[in-house]
Amino acid sequence: MNEEKILELIQEKKYKELKKILSEMNEVDIAEILEDEALDLGTLLLIFRMLPKDLAVEVFAYFSKEKQRGIISSLTDSEVKHIVDELFFDDMIDMLEEMPANIVKKILLNSSVEERKLINQFLNYPEDSAGSIMTIEYVEFKRSMTVKEALDRIRAIGLTKETIYTCYVTDRNRKLEGIVSLRTLVSSPDNSIIADLMDEDTIYAHTHDDQELVAEMFMKYDFIALPVVDMENRLTGIITVDDIMDVMEREDTEDFQIMAAMSPSEDAYLDTKVLRLARQRIVWLLILMISATVSGAIISSFDDLLSAVVILTSFIPMLMDTGGNSGSQSSTLIIRGLATGEIELKDAPKILWKEFRIALMVGFSLAFINLLRLIILERIDFGISLLVSVTLILTVIFAKVIGGILPIAAKKVKLDPALMAGPLITTIADALSLIVYFSIASWMFRI
Amino acid sequence: MNEEKILELIQEKKYKELKKILSEMNEVDIAEILEDEALDLGTLLLIFRMLPKDLAVEVFAYFSKEKQRGIISSLTDSEVKHIVDELFFDDMIDMLEEMPANIVKKILLNSSVEERKLINQFLNYPEDSAGSIMTIEYVEFKRSMTVKEALDRIRAIGLTKETIYTCYVTDRNRKLEGIVSLRTLVSSPDNSIIADLMDEDTIYAHTHDDQELVAEMFMKYDFIALPVVDMENRLTGIITVDDIMDVMEREDTEDFQIMAAMSPSEDAYLDTKVLRLARQRIVWLLILMISATVSGAIISSFDDLLSAVVILTSFIPMLMDTGGNSGSQSSTLIIRGLATGEIELKDAPKILWKEFRIALMVGFSLAFINLLRLIILERIDFGISLLVSVTLILTVIFAKVIGGILPIAAKKVKLDPALMAGPLITTIADALSLIVYFSIASWMFRI
Repeated sequence: MNEEKILELIQEKKYKELKKILSEMNEVDIAEILEDEALDLGTLLLIFRMLPKDLAVEVFAYFSKEKQRGIISSLTDSEVKHIVDELFFDDMIDMLEEMPANIVKKILLNSSVEERKLINQFLNYPEDSAGSIMTIEYVEFKRSMTVKEALDRIRAIGLTKETIYTCYVTDRNRKLEGIVSLRTLVSSPDNSIIADLMDEDTIYAHTHDDQELVAEMFMKYDFIALPVVDMENRLTGIITVDDIMDVMEREDTEDFQIMAAMSPSEDAYLDTKVLRLARQRIVWLLILMISATVSGAIISSFDDLLSAVVILTSFIPMLMDTGGNSGSQSSTLIIRGLATGEIELKDAPKILWKEFRIALMVGFSLAFINLLRLIILERIDFGISLLVSVTLILTVIFAKVIGGILPIAAKKVKLDPALMAGPLITTIADALSLIVYFSIASWMFRI
Repeated sequence: MNEEKILELIQEKKYKELKKILSEMNEVDIAEILEDEALDLGTLLLIFRMLPKDLAVEVFAYFSKEKQRGIISSLTDSEVKHIVDELFFDDMIDMLEEMPANIVKKILLNSSVEERKLINQFLNYPEDSAGSIMTIEYVEFKRSMTVKEALDRIRAIGLTKETIYTCYVTDRNRKLEGIVSLRTLVSSPDNSIIADLMDEDTIYAHTHDDQELVAEMFMKYDFIALPVVDMENRLTGIITVDDIMDVMEREDTEDFQIMAAMSPSEDAYLDTKVLRLARQRIVWLLILMISATVSGAIISSFDDLLSAVVILTSFIPMLMDTGGNSGSQSSTLIIRGLATGEIELKDAPKILWKEFRIALMVGFSLAFINLLRLIILERIDFGISLLVSVTLILTVIFAKVIGGILPIAAKKVKLDPALMAGPLITTIADALSLIVYFSIASWMFRI
């Protein structure tokens, strides 16, 4: 069923047919269609109320924060209560974090005392921690239960989605004792005991672990869900793989932004105001602009040389760009390796040695091609051609070694390695290449 | 159980204790420990053969290609046959793609005719297609089956891992008719008919779809598995979420590499030879180095101006760097937006207008701060300070507009948008900023 057809039915007010079609559709697709800009809030609410109740809640979870806000403030208290009761807990927390105070109040008024306590606890987990992305919908067994009792329990709780495929075994203090998969349950005899089936080599996260660490665990072990425990090893929630995929995408986007000298932001580009985007970019541009004046000062200090040998100036862009690009290549690989866990702090000496050898190969190749080009094609004086080529080699070596080691150094002092990316390395490589270039030139021309 | 303990047991040859401990461990952890460099192939094989057979196959799937190669060539035919029989099909295909011919032959000799045909079919799917990452381990029902029959079938097939949580309903020609989750099965009465329980609004991929598209579908619908059909809509395999997470990580790594002007590579940095790393970097450095000579030529053509007003040279690094950084910011955001599907081709006019306004704000702010700095701190002549500041504004505008639009233009002509990242934008922005700078200066000083 395609989007135009649905929008047409809405416009023609063929609600009976619409209701039938929607009830058979995927919740994500419905949310996407109802997000259409052409739809006013009145019509949206009309259609939203037309959905079977459970489907409505699932669709609601996939709406943008803005649409959720509009809908919540227009619904009656009993409708809000239904949503609050049925929404997955992590989706509700995500929503609450973005809502204005009056809507948060409306939601809290429609939840039980117990639930309100939990909501407050969850809202207090640090941003980007395992606690902030976990949910409380999971199935808990005791080790003495039989498979039949366990399956009955799953049916009784009646959870939707994938949160039932891994179940958790806890003791009377809710300490995590093991896990058992639904796969194991359905392929075991009804009277088997959970304690005999469960896997005790349980891998779990702590509520305060960073979400990046959790994502790495998912990548490593191919989980679809991971239990989260508190300081006393009590089970407090689970994290599901769909939320981890969002984390991975967000973290990578953040790295891309930081590496291009921007303050990171989770806002969608097209929905963000121009002023806000400008602010995210200006700080780093300013810092880098001021830093670049160092290179300017180096040039100024050699102005006698430059007035005497004007042609030297024309090689500055090529030297600066090649230095910057060489350094960016190295720093990008190392930053990415650190992010995926492939590279660790202890690899620093190996990286240094590797980058040095790569730089030698790359530097000499570039310098050789450059030397030929200058002498044969541009007919530049041999002395100057050699000066430029030697500077090129040294620049590539400096840039690659610095680009390779700075991200590791940043990690060592608990800074984000992504800060040590292209823009910063370029600024450093610029200054170094100019110093090398002019020092050799001064010596050559004795100025 | 920690790594040192295990390695200690190996060294002390306490194999009985070791065997017991290993049999209770997670397969990923075992593979990680056995990958230790200190372990020779003989000891590795000894321990590998000590593992319960099914666990051994799971551990094998997590070994690096190099270790897999070593093990396969040392095993007996019957051992190889067991691995071939029990390995997940997608893991086997991954392995075969990386093995030398003699090992591929050894494996094919130990597989059935039917299996060999399938292997050849799978090896022929284009790289990075849905077909190349799917597996054939899934459960298939007919619509007339009851829940009891379906559950019995799951038990009979006895698949491991998450591939049983979504099951597929096909007709007699193997055309996909619907899906039904294990959750639905266990919460429905034994005598319900599959046809009444299955979801017919099935979302699926085609064997030739790009894996990035598949990853987007997983992100959008929060699936844990997705069916893959051929041209005639016949079910040919499924893709599971753990493989999609790997795809996401690889695709992002590739983007990082291309954006830093490198040929993309899936090899791990620390395991790749220096010569190979150098080759991946040199092509783009060379192209960009040659392109940067355009900027050099621009400078040369204004050498009368530069000899007369030597101070102009000292602002070149700041102008070039700020232009490059401004352009990188814009292109990075757009490239990432295109990769996550947030930005589409049709958004081009919106982006152009947005980047233009951002550039005005950023350009004027930077220029104003720069003007104050030059006049007050550096005591530069007002005319030159103004010249530099005006150039700065125009440079930022050019860089941001070009940086915003080139990735979209690349996508339009089916090039990888990631190519239009920092390094290329920097080279273009350099040339433009120098032209603006010298043109205004020539007019000012009438040279």
